[in-house]
Amino acid sequence: MAGARSAATRLTHSSLFLLSRAAAAAATRHPNLPSPPRDYSKMASSVGGNGYSDVTRVLFCGHYWPASTIYTKEYLQNYPFIQVDEVGLEHVPDVIQNYHICVVKNKCIDSDIIAKATKMKIIMQYGVGLEGVDINAATEQKIKVARIPGSTTGNAIACAEMAIYLTLGVLRKQKEMDTAVIQKDLGLPVGETIFGKTVCFSSIGMEIAKRLRPFGVKILATKRNWSSYTVSCDLDGLVDKKGGPEDMYELAREADIVITCMTLNNESVGIVDHKFLSALKKGSYLINIARGRLLDYTAVFNHLESGHLGGLGIDVAWTEPFDPEDPILKFPNVIITPHVAGITEYSYRTMAKVVGDVALKLHAGEPFTEIEFVN
Amino acid sequence: MAGARSAATRLTHSSLFLLSRAAAAAATRHPNLPSPPRDYSKMASSVGGNGYSDVTRVLFCGHYWPASTIYTKEYLQNYPFIQVDEVGLEHVPDVIQNYHICVVKNKCIDSDIIAKATKMKIIMQYGVGLEGVDINAATEQKIKVARIPGSTTGNAIACAEMAIYLTLGVLRKQKEMDTAVIQKDLGLPVGETIFGKTVCFSSIGMEIAKRLRPFGVKILATKRNWSSYTVSCDLDGLVDKKGGPEDMYELAREADIVITCMTLNNESVGIVDHKFLSALKKGSYLINIARGRLLDYTAVFNHLESGHLGGLGIDVAWTEPFDPEDPILKFPNVIITPHVAGITEYSYRTMAKVVGDVALKLHAGEPFTEIEFVN
Repeated sequence: MAGARSAATRLTHSSLFLLSRAAAAAATRHPNLPSPPRDYSKMASSVGGNGYSDVTRVLFCGHYWPASTIYTKEYLQNYPFIQVDEVGLEHVPDVIQNYHICVVKNKCIDSDIIAKATKMKIIMQYGVGLEGVDINAATEQKIKVARIPGSTTGNAIACAEMAIYLTLGVLRKQKEMDTAVIQKDLGLPVGETIFGKTVCFSSIGMEIAKRLRPFGVKILATKRNWSSYTVSCDLDGLVDKKGGPEDMYELAREADIVITCMTLNNESVGIVDHKFLSALKKGSYLINIARGRLLDYTAVFNHLESGHLGGLGIDVAWTEPFDPEDPILKFPNVIITPHVAGITEYSYRTMAKVVGDVALKLHAGEPFTEIEFVN
Repeated sequence: MAGARSAATRLTHSSLFLLSRAAAAAATRHPNLPSPPRDYSKMASSVGGNGYSDVTRVLFCGHYWPASTIYTKEYLQNYPFIQVDEVGLEHVPDVIQNYHICVVKNKCIDSDIIAKATKMKIIMQYGVGLEGVDINAATEQKIKVARIPGSTTGNAIACAEMAIYLTLGVLRKQKEMDTAVIQKDLGLPVGETIFGKTVCFSSIGMEIAKRLRPFGVKILATKRNWSSYTVSCDLDGLVDKKGGPEDMYELAREADIVITCMTLNNESVGIVDHKFLSALKKGSYLINIARGRLLDYTAVFNHLESGHLGGLGIDVAWTEPFDPEDPILKFPNVIITPHVAGITEYSYRTMAKVVGDVALKLHAGEPFTEIEFVN
């Protein structure tokens, strides 16, 4: 371990700079994103029986968000003592005992899986959401759990841009625009401007608020402490009306557009429910870039059906991947994107560097600086 | 005429206020947009033989952008002495002799048509673009030609929002996102952020620049005086590098995103040509919210085919309505909307008021304040 540490230390200062430049250069490319080769038996055999080995092993769970694995591998390509693997969601329990770091993506890491993760040091997200991780079980097993703060990696920026894209898509009636093109119509549909609207949101909304401000909007936000893990942000100066949790329905009554961007947890699950939606003005728009289950499906469906909700734009859904034939997607005023709000060259290359550096630092026994531990 | 004028004057002050409020209230609705009934023989017979009649008649050319006619009719619904009609593009030459005001939309108003417009006082656009009007022929016939300045009606605001929507749609790879949803992929495609990009544009770009600034961009603009009708705007303070026409290619070399929003005229037609596109960096994005023919089709097609152009987002096309089967739309990185950049409840209700007020003022013999004459 001492040898590996010094090797890593030697490499770190010169190579990280070069890799950082390489990653920055690569950020302008659009790589093909093939599934990497997988050989579970080899993965299992090349790691020692207890604690650290000569190789620090990073497990990416599942094949969705493929760029997370690929970019991390690219970032670490000159460090043979860091091994990055990706396995299908169903294979995670079979191999997790061989890994020191786990990047969960959308895998539910429950106490059964954690019990098998005997070498695991860090369970982390390639981003912010840790709702799938049994943090108590991890803590009991002395495994640290961490997110990558969105504010330092471009993740919040990417999500903010996506929120504005979805907002504009809903206001401009994306599906009707597509139909008009196909039907050779012109000047239809009549859309809505963001200008003049009242927007209600919270959490990573700071990056959205900064960008929406010059659109000419009134901004409302509840500073509800949904969990202690909520990304903190200073919304002062950008927010026209700030309320506590108890003001949620009062602010909803003023909103034309609601953007949900809070962490999903036991308190926030289904928070956009019948009561909240009914408090909105008729014709209001709802945008969700955070987690699908913040929204009560039935309540949203019913408010779309009644016309009370003027439109829905979601990057996240109740189950993922979401059934493209789900009835809620059949409404002409509902648009969906495939959970890509935070997925940009910029943010993903930056987060690949964070994960890569976590692996290098774990290997070298150095302290971690760019992740936020939650236990 | 004197009677009509005083009637209009009596009505104007009280009713305009009420109508303005009604229009503002109506702006929250999404009206159905049926084609209005047409009876050309009646239109032709109810106007006197020369100059003004008891009725001031407004002709909307063609059935595209239907909300322009409908909203103007709604604005003027309490003024029976103003008659608003809409006829198909092919019928314009048959009826134009009966009208005092013509709203051209996408009709080419050439010297032959103008020669027939014996009662015409004002030819105007429901917006900015007057490239279809033979202004010299109108001037010779003492017909005034006018646009509605985009800066005062929300048109520029609506167009700016659309430019940002198209930019985000191209950067986030809208078509690939749609495919990912259908194929039940997640976390694909990897998009690009606006953050960190260099954006090059001009003309109504002020509203875009204001909104893009907090996205974290470098802004370049050429202040090319494409025509004396270019909407003037003070870009100082928003622009990182400002150049004259001679700097067009130099600025292009720095740009990641080019947004064309200039007036179409003899100087600007095809200005985005092979030379300009070749000056761009490989993978740059092109957004057009102004007029289709600013872009050289073949040059754009070839630069998409070669991959030099990273994406194209257009609200306007070379012919309109554009053939939805056109090969240029088959590129996965090309998106199109049906010429709706300026079409929002806010901007269209506001412009309906402008057109309505022009009719009322012409009827009353009062001066015009909200339109910009170009002859």
